[in-house]
Amino acid sequence: MSQSLGKASVRPEKPVYILNSASAVGTKEGEGPLGLLFDKVGEDDMFGCSTWEEAESTLQKDAVGLALEKAGLSQEDISFIFAGDLLGQSIATSFGISSYQIPLLGVYGACSTCGESLALGTMSIAGGFADRVVCVTSSHFASAEKEFRFPLEYGNQRPLSATWTVTGSGAFVLGSEEVMAESKSSGKGSPRARITGITVGKIVDYGLKDSMNMGACMAPAAASTLEQHFIDFDSQPNCYDKIITGDLGKVGQKVLIDLMNEKGYDISAQHMDCGIEIYDGDSQDTHSGGSGCGCSAVTLSAYILKQLEEHNWKKVLFMPTGALLSKTSFNEGKSVPGIAHGIVIECV
Amino acid sequence: MSQSLGKASVRPEKPVYILNSASAVGTKEGEGPLGLLFDKVGEDDMFGCSTWEEAESTLQKDAVGLALEKAGLSQEDISFIFAGDLLGQSIATSFGISSYQIPLLGVYGACSTCGESLALGTMSIAGGFADRVVCVTSSHFASAEKEFRFPLEYGNQRPLSATWTVTGSGAFVLGSEEVMAESKSSGKGSPRARITGITVGKIVDYGLKDSMNMGACMAPAAASTLEQHFIDFDSQPNCYDKIITGDLGKVGQKVLIDLMNEKGYDISAQHMDCGIEIYDGDSQDTHSGGSGCGCSAVTLSAYILKQLEEHNWKKVLFMPTGALLSKTSFNEGKSVPGIAHGIVIECV
Repeated sequence: MSQSLGKASVRPEKPVYILNSASAVGTKEGEGPLGLLFDKVGEDDMFGCSTWEEAESTLQKDAVGLALEKAGLSQEDISFIFAGDLLGQSIATSFGISSYQIPLLGVYGACSTCGESLALGTMSIAGGFADRVVCVTSSHFASAEKEFRFPLEYGNQRPLSATWTVTGSGAFVLGSEEVMAESKSSGKGSPRARITGITVGKIVDYGLKDSMNMGACMAPAAASTLEQHFIDFDSQPNCYDKIITGDLGKVGQKVLIDLMNEKGYDISAQHMDCGIEIYDGDSQDTHSGGSGCGCSAVTLSAYILKQLEEHNWKKVLFMPTGALLSKTSFNEGKSVPGIAHGIVIECV
Repeated sequence: MSQSLGKASVRPEKPVYILNSASAVGTKEGEGPLGLLFDKVGEDDMFGCSTWEEAESTLQKDAVGLALEKAGLSQEDISFIFAGDLLGQSIATSFGISSYQIPLLGVYGACSTCGESLALGTMSIAGGFADRVVCVTSSHFASAEKEFRFPLEYGNQRPLSATWTVTGSGAFVLGSEEVMAESKSSGKGSPRARITGITVGKIVDYGLKDSMNMGACMAPAAASTLEQHFIDFDSQPNCYDKIITGDLGKVGQKVLIDLMNEKGYDISAQHMDCGIEIYDGDSQDTHSGGSGCGCSAVTLSAYILKQLEEHNWKKVLFMPTGALLSKTSFNEGKSVPGIAHGIVIECV
């Protein structure tokens, strides 16, 4: 049995279903263009906690709890949880999901983590290792500013190329064909969509060092994964209703479209970026757009899957992008390498 | 097809082979009881670099390069690399392996990361998603002290319960039955061992807060995974020649044996801890033992696989243990939750 397609890509023999999902976000995201679509919007960004890190943990806990509830499942039904976030040693995850007592496989791919968790979750089900898994990722504006840049109290200025880290967490319950059919027949509802392909990205480093322009740092990685995806799946941009990056923002979007043109692909009609969709850049002062693990995760759960459910779109390539920097690597003068993972999601 | 065994465990239908592996370590590890067994011992702990983080990256790069060379393979033969380390945002990995241009799935499980990478690597092959993958993890004493505790220049005192982070990286090339047979017939050598089972651990938090006694913080997680493993595989301690934890050290070993006794299992005859084996605690001033992602990884590559190759042992349970803390969570007064993943490794 081979479910591999070239060295970087995977096509599951049987599709893996997104049984259900949930999103929990902060106030700014609730006020944005997608605000009414999120499952839970916090009253403030502390979510009743005393630290930003605990607040982010609460987002993950809420998103997983809501996703399980919407799927009519309990934690005992889940084999593995694939989880990660942006904080050092993934503490939002460790303190967010420990109460669920689900075997944990921690993942790190910076803001591409949502894509990585869906890729591994899909493989664990398509490989026959699990019937149902959960994939969850999060970010929080204040914990990310503290982790990567400056404490909020410094009131630092942000260039127009900077993005605004999304406060939010998205959780996805994946299941096999068998449990999907079981869910349907027992009245627990239809799946939201199905995952039919994966392209795992490589680290791409163009030597850029500007952590205030992460869109440009990540665009080459998105271009690399996208080209590999088109080759491995023998596909073209117009095979997809949308090609959706995670958080390139307006600056990164332009770079990606240019790089793909150089490679002979025009994606300008299909390209969409979660970071551009989630805020109204003009009125919300978010500059290039939104970013963070949570950005692509909550946009997938609240907006993209809705479009697929309503059959407005039939097939999309969801491709979260990550910037592999830390404050230590930045302070030591290192570049900001990028990575991106592509997930083919189709309507049911 | 089901390769799952209970909710937390996996038994691959066909075994996955460790085609080859390599270890690269620092001077202190080279002077320890296993010193002569490592593939590469650095002349100093900077490895020709200007920062501790770059030194750790170099360890990963060297370990992967050596493992591929020993297996007679090049980077183009590898589908995925599962990689991680202890530093914030896994920068030792991002800057260590980027030159290989292998699709990357980043993992984080603190010092249990070696076990997690082998678990996911095994699943990717047993599921038919890849023929060959690489799993690599690392740690470095100086980068870890800076990341979790104090800069070395402070000369802080260490209690006897503290462990010493191993400077080292271990890399493993896993392959399917088909490529193993191909390697053998083309004269590239026999596999070192085979992986026949996996138990994925849950987060276990007893509320301990002492980051200078991580053995005690992690022992409850090791006990939880071990009990789950015995149940899922319907096995007993004497089914294994050794039950090998990653870095519990002398203090954690005692706690684990006591906890397992309470659960009705006597593992005192089988238990071994990589952290206890890697240093001579009395002459090397390492107190409770070694720790870090690198500790279990280099001990597996240099010592454990050698015992299996020589048929001194037939079957072991390799169970790296991780402490899910960060300096932020520690400074905010949070506990130190633990996690452990079990891998059944048998001789060929």
